[in-house]
Amino acid sequence: MRIALLGGTGDIGEGLALRWGYDTDHDIVIGSRDPARAREKAGEYETELDSRGLDRKITGFENAMAADRADVVVAAVPAYHLSDTVESVAEKLDEDTILVSPAVGMQRDEDGFHYNPPGAGSVTALAADAAPDDVPVVGAFHNLAADRLANLDVELDLDTLVVGDDDDAKGLVADLGGEIEGLRVLDAGPLGVAAEVESVTPLVINIAMNNKGMHDVGVTFD
Amino acid sequence: MRIALLGGTGDIGEGLALRWGYDTDHDIVIGSRDPARAREKAGEYETELDSRGLDRKITGFENAMAADRADVVVAAVPAYHLSDTVESVAEKLDEDTILVSPAVGMQRDEDGFHYNPPGAGSVTALAADAAPDDVPVVGAFHNLAADRLANLDVELDLDTLVVGDDDDAKGLVADLGGEIEGLRVLDAGPLGVAAEVESVTPLVINIAMNNKGMHDVGVTFD
Repeated sequence: MRIALLGGTGDIGEGLALRWGYDTDHDIVIGSRDPARAREKAGEYETELDSRGLDRKITGFENAMAADRADVVVAAVPAYHLSDTVESVAEKLDEDTILVSPAVGMQRDEDGFHYNPPGAGSVTALAADAAPDDVPVVGAFHNLAADRLANLDVELDLDTLVVGDDDDAKGLVADLGGEIEGLRVLDAGPLGVAAEVESVTPLVINIAMNNKGMHDVGVTFD
Repeated sequence: MRIALLGGTGDIGEGLALRWGYDTDHDIVIGSRDPARAREKAGEYETELDSRGLDRKITGFENAMAADRADVVVAAVPAYHLSDTVESVAEKLDEDTILVSPAVGMQRDEDGFHYNPPGAGSVTALAADAAPDDVPVVGAFHNLAADRLANLDVELDLDTLVVGDDDDAKGLVADLGGEIEGLRVLDAGPLGVAAEVESVTPLVINIAMNNKGMHDVGVTFD
């Protein structure tokens, strides 16, 4: 399977690229607005995997080129770039491409981090609004601590949640997530409950800020 | 310490009464709008603890009587009864009484459960608004699966979160929670981030609804 990580030069994109690169044989493509930056980071990820004995080809392209012919496109960009990014690759998406949204809208004040959903109700809904109508959209990988995800020396032992209205697409993304060692994927429901999933991210940051010895906090459900 | 559980006849009140009754020596008082109902449930909790070899006196009173001379008053009532309940016991509260709010506002539609905060921003903020100004308010015990909490045969092995602006009060409530076997209490920050804590409750219900074999879902952070 070919997975494009738009904004794959950022921290969540890096973590997913390294984990899928290490734990699976899927074709990983890094996208960025700046193709030179995408190639540079793709090379860094190759080097990291090579240092662990894996001879892996990871390519880097401008976002629309990265999305071209991908089976799964992960929009690993900040929430405020999400609509523009999805629209910039829209002509490369169709009913056979799954668009995955891991972004979360947050704001910070003196009390800590708050969930700050866009007018669409959730960032995942914003991604769905920006995508062509026939493209299945799945919210996933929201509340993964990015540094922990990107450090292959760390055993994850975490849960992550998927939301979406297309059960086949959601199942495929759940399977992809489950191929990452130490990651369990749970179904949190349809796209309409994405806000409850996304709001875990400010919470785990607040917990890390307020409890000594806790950092890169993740979550498990049972 | 004397702990009053207003609405202690409901499911979260029952769970806290049984756990504190079983794991600690604190004086447990059950409150209800109906004093006969409070006495009846207190007797049931005594019987349950007695069946496990514990000779425990648990008393039941009308809410204001239950709150009288309590060190900690837990408003274990539904969110839509919270303001009325707190106001009905207000004259029994003072700066030496800690008011604990475990309630969550939710609504359900065809997608599942949603967090539905009141105008105050969170249910914990609503409790603070309803309480006299000098009473410290702590949000706690929101996302505990009630059936699991009330079943003393079940090892909890869960986290719960506290929020509040009075660090001494928050610390005392955290200590009380930590005295429950298998429960770890984490500090999620000041009262201003209570919404991020409360919104975990609809999420865990959605997870239980969408994943086979999961029920009474709780959460751990690490």
